[in-house]
Amino acid sequence: MTFKKLINDPFDVVDEALDGFVYAHSSLIALHEPRVVVRRSPAGSKVGIVVGGGSGHEPAFSGYVGLGMADAAACGNIFASPPPDVILSAIRAANHGEGVLMAYGNYAGDVMNFGLAAQLAAAEGIEVREVRVSDDVASAPKGEESKRRGIAGDIIVFKCAGAAAEGGRPLAEVERIAREANEATRSMGVALSACEVPGAGRPTFELPDDQMEIGMGVHGEPGIRRGPLRPADEVAGVLVDTILADVGSRRGDVALLVNGLGATAYVDQHIMFRAARRALESRGLKVVRGYVGEFITSLEMAGASVTVTFLHDELLAMLDAPASAPAFRN
Amino acid sequence: MTFKKLINDPFDVVDEALDGFVYAHSSLIALHEPRVVVRRSPAGSKVGIVVGGGSGHEPAFSGYVGLGMADAAACGNIFASPPPDVILSAIRAANHGEGVLMAYGNYAGDVMNFGLAAQLAAAEGIEVREVRVSDDVASAPKGEESKRRGIAGDIIVFKCAGAAAEGGRPLAEVERIAREANEATRSMGVALSACEVPGAGRPTFELPDDQMEIGMGVHGEPGIRRGPLRPADEVAGVLVDTILADVGSRRGDVALLVNGLGATAYVDQHIMFRAARRALESRGLKVVRGYVGEFITSLEMAGASVTVTFLHDELLAMLDAPASAPAFRN
Repeated sequence: MTFKKLINDPFDVVDEALDGFVYAHSSLIALHEPRVVVRRSPAGSKVGIVVGGGSGHEPAFSGYVGLGMADAAACGNIFASPPPDVILSAIRAANHGEGVLMAYGNYAGDVMNFGLAAQLAAAEGIEVREVRVSDDVASAPKGEESKRRGIAGDIIVFKCAGAAAEGGRPLAEVERIAREANEATRSMGVALSACEVPGAGRPTFELPDDQMEIGMGVHGEPGIRRGPLRPADEVAGVLVDTILADVGSRRGDVALLVNGLGATAYVDQHIMFRAARRALESRGLKVVRGYVGEFITSLEMAGASVTVTFLHDELLAMLDAPASAPAFRN
Repeated sequence: MTFKKLINDPFDVVDEALDGFVYAHSSLIALHEPRVVVRRSPAGSKVGIVVGGGSGHEPAFSGYVGLGMADAAACGNIFASPPPDVILSAIRAANHGEGVLMAYGNYAGDVMNFGLAAQLAAAEGIEVREVRVSDDVASAPKGEESKRRGIAGDIIVFKCAGAAAEGGRPLAEVERIAREANEATRSMGVALSACEVPGAGRPTFELPDDQMEIGMGVHGEPGIRRGPLRPADEVAGVLVDTILADVGSRRGDVALLVNGLGATAYVDQHIMFRAARRALESRGLKVVRGYVGEFITSLEMAGASVTVTFLHDELLAMLDAPASAPAFRN
């Protein structure tokens, strides 16, 4: 399988793409230094929000910098954590004297590097807390939630944390709300095809022409079931049932987010949204907020994920608060 | 080549996708009848704007219904014009007594069906004008501009027409501004892979693994040059040079829109934006507005297009006017 890319030198992909992204959204964001994206107009006194992770997941993470969301994003190489000095620079840029909350997906490299950056920032007198997003139910069994990876649930956590900070809540409250958003959120995805890290010369994994893999991670981490491609309604049913089995008897109002991984067509993403909504509602849940699109991709991987957030009044208010970031507006 | 899709019955793709799309954007839009999308809150007295065309180009055309853009979108089957009765229904929904402007891409089926619908509407006493978007320089030579197809220039024309109508301009003025936006806009694309119409069982065209086709249309219409895949800077240079050759000595401030066709990664789209901006600026033009993303796709086709709009003060004001549609916000 060949992946045709519109790029120049593979080593320049991250910086050239950031250059284009920041220019196209220059009313909202700016490049603080090579891999650190900040708001065009820095916020006043409030808790700072730092997000980040590997590149290749665009519009994550730079797309979530803006009013009501993050103050700064730290960007790594393709599918690789940003190094501690880049994260430290993002922390400094986000710091307005009220402390900084870092929110990022729960991956070993990110945990190490964000943790080191937080220590360096603490040595400079900046109070830093962190929430590791861990919404992917396929990545570790129930009871081992802290081992789970973060996927599209990132966006829900960033949105709630950002709204809390923008609303003037203190650091401990922003952290509590981000943690609650993470705990209320479950995701599961399906991969239909691989992608190729620029310059690698081979796909991230192999998947036969008639197969899909349920639960595969956004970097090609193994899923929980590989099998023949099935209709959208059936795939969405499996994803929803797995999510609901994980939360026990929790029901009520939910937000539903369907995320396209990169190559999957708009119509397919929206058919999956419809299917997931119907699956949730037929099982007694009410979808009161819906989001569909490419929120966190894996280059040109084909597939989609379903994210469900179990809402209470405070989380719903955080989701509905104003936001103006390149990839999320309210 | 196999295309894996997350769909149910291929015959249900358009309606199921619209169901998902409208639900996810239900604060902005509503389904007026099966293939007609309208604003959730109808506008007051103003010129109505109707857009539309075949499905498979999502977020076009429903994504451009909203404040400051269209009042209604008429949606056809995949890659097929909506029939006249669907367009007529969209015209009626968009009509607030001040006349209706239809803006759509210049394709034979659309020209026929929108024209018939306009006649039917006229018989009901609704004054209808139309602007056929014809931005694709690869689709017919200079001097035969009226034969050219509409591609991503659609979005520029919809935006300017929508802003003029929202600003209270009369029908003749809205038509003039839409026509000027079209005349000021040129596009050219490059295809890297085909897509598959759901249920067709074969790709829309064949393109060898190491080849790209410059100038290919969004439904796989033949381009002007097929050859080996080249770096983004070089591809963007060819697209920009062809556009500039077409407009003679016109220079000055421009808006640049880079459109992803569906499967091309975010990073690639943004690298193409950077490359096109640099190509334009090295040739003496100034890019004062930039837009990047999937504005008008071709299902899961890989590739991108470059659109350049030569600005004057009025067009720039129209581009910058407020807009709140699912796929375009200012």
